[in-house]
Amino acid sequence: MSTDETGLSPTRAPHPHAGDPIFDLHVGGKMETRSTVALAGPDDLSLAYTPGVALVCEAIAADPSMTQHYTWVPNTVAVVSDGTAVLGLGDIGPAAAMPVMEGKAVLFKQFGGVDAVPICLATTDTEEIIETVARLAPSFGGINLEDISAPRCFEIEARLKEMLDIPVFHDDQHGTAVVALAALVNALRLTGRNPESTRVVISGAGAAGVAVARILLEAGIKDLAVTDRKGVLNSVRGDLTPVKKALAVDTADHFGRTGTLADVLVGADVYIGVSGGTVPEEHVATMAPDAIIFGLANPTPEVHPDVAHRHARVVATGRSDFPNQINNVLAFPGIFRGAFDVHATAITEGMKLAAATALADLVGDDLAPDHVIPSPFDPRVGPAVATAVAAAARRDGVARR
Amino acid sequence: MSTDETGLSPTRAPHPHAGDPIFDLHVGGKMETRSTVALAGPDDLSLAYTPGVALVCEAIAADPSMTQHYTWVPNTVAVVSDGTAVLGLGDIGPAAAMPVMEGKAVLFKQFGGVDAVPICLATTDTEEIIETVARLAPSFGGINLEDISAPRCFEIEARLKEMLDIPVFHDDQHGTAVVALAALVNALRLTGRNPESTRVVISGAGAAGVAVARILLEAGIKDLAVTDRKGVLNSVRGDLTPVKKALAVDTADHFGRTGTLADVLVGADVYIGVSGGTVPEEHVATMAPDAIIFGLANPTPEVHPDVAHRHARVVATGRSDFPNQINNVLAFPGIFRGAFDVHATAITEGMKLAAATALADLVGDDLAPDHVIPSPFDPRVGPAVATAVAAAARRDGVARR
Repeated sequence: MSTDETGLSPTRAPHPHAGDPIFDLHVGGKMETRSTVALAGPDDLSLAYTPGVALVCEAIAADPSMTQHYTWVPNTVAVVSDGTAVLGLGDIGPAAAMPVMEGKAVLFKQFGGVDAVPICLATTDTEEIIETVARLAPSFGGINLEDISAPRCFEIEARLKEMLDIPVFHDDQHGTAVVALAALVNALRLTGRNPESTRVVISGAGAAGVAVARILLEAGIKDLAVTDRKGVLNSVRGDLTPVKKALAVDTADHFGRTGTLADVLVGADVYIGVSGGTVPEEHVATMAPDAIIFGLANPTPEVHPDVAHRHARVVATGRSDFPNQINNVLAFPGIFRGAFDVHATAITEGMKLAAATALADLVGDDLAPDHVIPSPFDPRVGPAVATAVAAAARRDGVARR
Repeated sequence: MSTDETGLSPTRAPHPHAGDPIFDLHVGGKMETRSTVALAGPDDLSLAYTPGVALVCEAIAADPSMTQHYTWVPNTVAVVSDGTAVLGLGDIGPAAAMPVMEGKAVLFKQFGGVDAVPICLATTDTEEIIETVARLAPSFGGINLEDISAPRCFEIEARLKEMLDIPVFHDDQHGTAVVALAALVNALRLTGRNPESTRVVISGAGAAGVAVARILLEAGIKDLAVTDRKGVLNSVRGDLTPVKKALAVDTADHFGRTGTLADVLVGADVYIGVSGGTVPEEHVATMAPDAIIFGLANPTPEVHPDVAHRHARVVATGRSDFPNQINNVLAFPGIFRGAFDVHATAITEGMKLAAATALADLVGDDLAPDHVIPSPFDPRVGPAVATAVAAAARRDGVARR
């Protein structure tokens, strides 16, 4: 062999779930690293490795911005989790979180052309996660936080955004928020509503609930109530975390909304569930005519689509086997693609809103109650989101090129 | 698009060294991540990602050893550096170290079928490096430490080996040591020497020098003197670090060797330079007949091959443009391949010796003064080293399968 690889590959032991298509597919994991340069002989080696590589190292040492040209760093995101809030499974630890992080990594590549490395950390301590990610930062062009439980996820993201000059993005918050907003924009259009006069109820005040609430406020929603297990978040309550308290001030307090989820659902135009609970049909029935219901819990939506359709005009879920799937993969690959393409220092609120608008606009003339959001496999999605996000990064002054 | 990727790829800005073949080759870096599973439509997504992946996560949560079957972890090594001792360039920092770590990563894949992720850390603190790598450990099947300056590299490796149940290997030490030993074994064979009665001098007591000395002792060399800038390491000196002191006790002290490099070179059978200095020809000339000279500094060997050949029978360097290249790539890919194939918990001294023996044996009947070590592009190298290392892991009781 003088012109190709040795062909060495892993020796695999028999696996205990052989025959199960899901486990069969997962044997050996779902991803690999590969060289993008030829290494067929000594000449190649002397360019890509020693002695040639020394010139590139010296150029970066003299001017660190050269990293952008001569390494894989600017196109590579770390998908970082501590395994505390994985899917609906909860705190299953870093080892068990890896299959999800690998999946996320391959979606980054497939739908955004972004290289991604899954990193599962052997710590759940907020300070340790922050300092670890900060130390890894020279190796990555961006940080995608994933499946880290609330409320730690809020502080971890906020602090890392402050410390680092690369995009830091907690997808469970902002990916969900962007796609939910895109679907809602189209649902409002379809039902002839405007954001200012639409009454929205969100159940769930974890990572996704808080982020959806925040992006709806930025998008012009005024009358918004967020509930947790104990009812509507408002300043009357004395049991709120700082994040929930701040949200109460910006939402239910304005219209004096109080009570339970059932109380605020009466007459509501929009219900968005990101809680994992179940809303009884008699409560759903009290919503306004032409209601909009997004039950985003997976695999069991807060309101089953069959039930929801008896009381609502537009119904969305997180599931691929019903229409209108609110799937984060519509957002995060294009958002990082756009951010990386302009070497953005951050992902701003403007970039997220631009992503949502681009997604909503792609539906165009096909807008219908069962089509308020594009399919993840629509090839226009990634490029449209990336282009919109890159333009917003320039407008917001965070683009470095 | 319904059956393939979106085709999104990075937008590249013009680079300042366009036209230089080394820099041109480095544009965008040298590696990428790729999916090894199909993601062509919703059905693929539901197996590789939600909801299917949840079953795999649950299986690992119930039995962490399932990580070995269903993730990329057991075949993936982190190439970790703090950028303090990069090539001959010294402390150039983590950003500037990245091209070397990427190069190392692609060599791992090319020559060992090992997936590798370059990690450059924004800290040079021993404790911080240790704790950071320990927190990353669930994400990797092994840790390759790289270009971390001595003496911190010794403690970092020793502590991590103690803490982690996966292979931890500082290549600057042990990769060099394995290949140097392999070449020396053949050089001794060629010159009719046996290890017990061979007098060896090593100049340089950094990462490579210490490791080469240690492996030679394990391989049966008795009369060994190691020098640093101040002369021979021996217990008479009061200025030695703990690592050097321990080495003095095991080397020069036995034969009462003292003085300078010039002093101990007189009558020596073997000189191994891993110091980066230059040895004057008049000192080289004092060595024993049929001497063996390895000048491993790159790009300038301690003794230029033209000079060395006037006084020695076997000459080796670290350079690809002279015969007998002592190149770490002969060792580390196969060592990790073998360790991973048996899911080893560590890389033992026995595994390193086995790698050296396998490398030496590959030369076989082709043994000649200008051929004491195989070429890195000899396709037998990776498999031979991997097989020998896996067998040694089983003998040493560190194989988990």
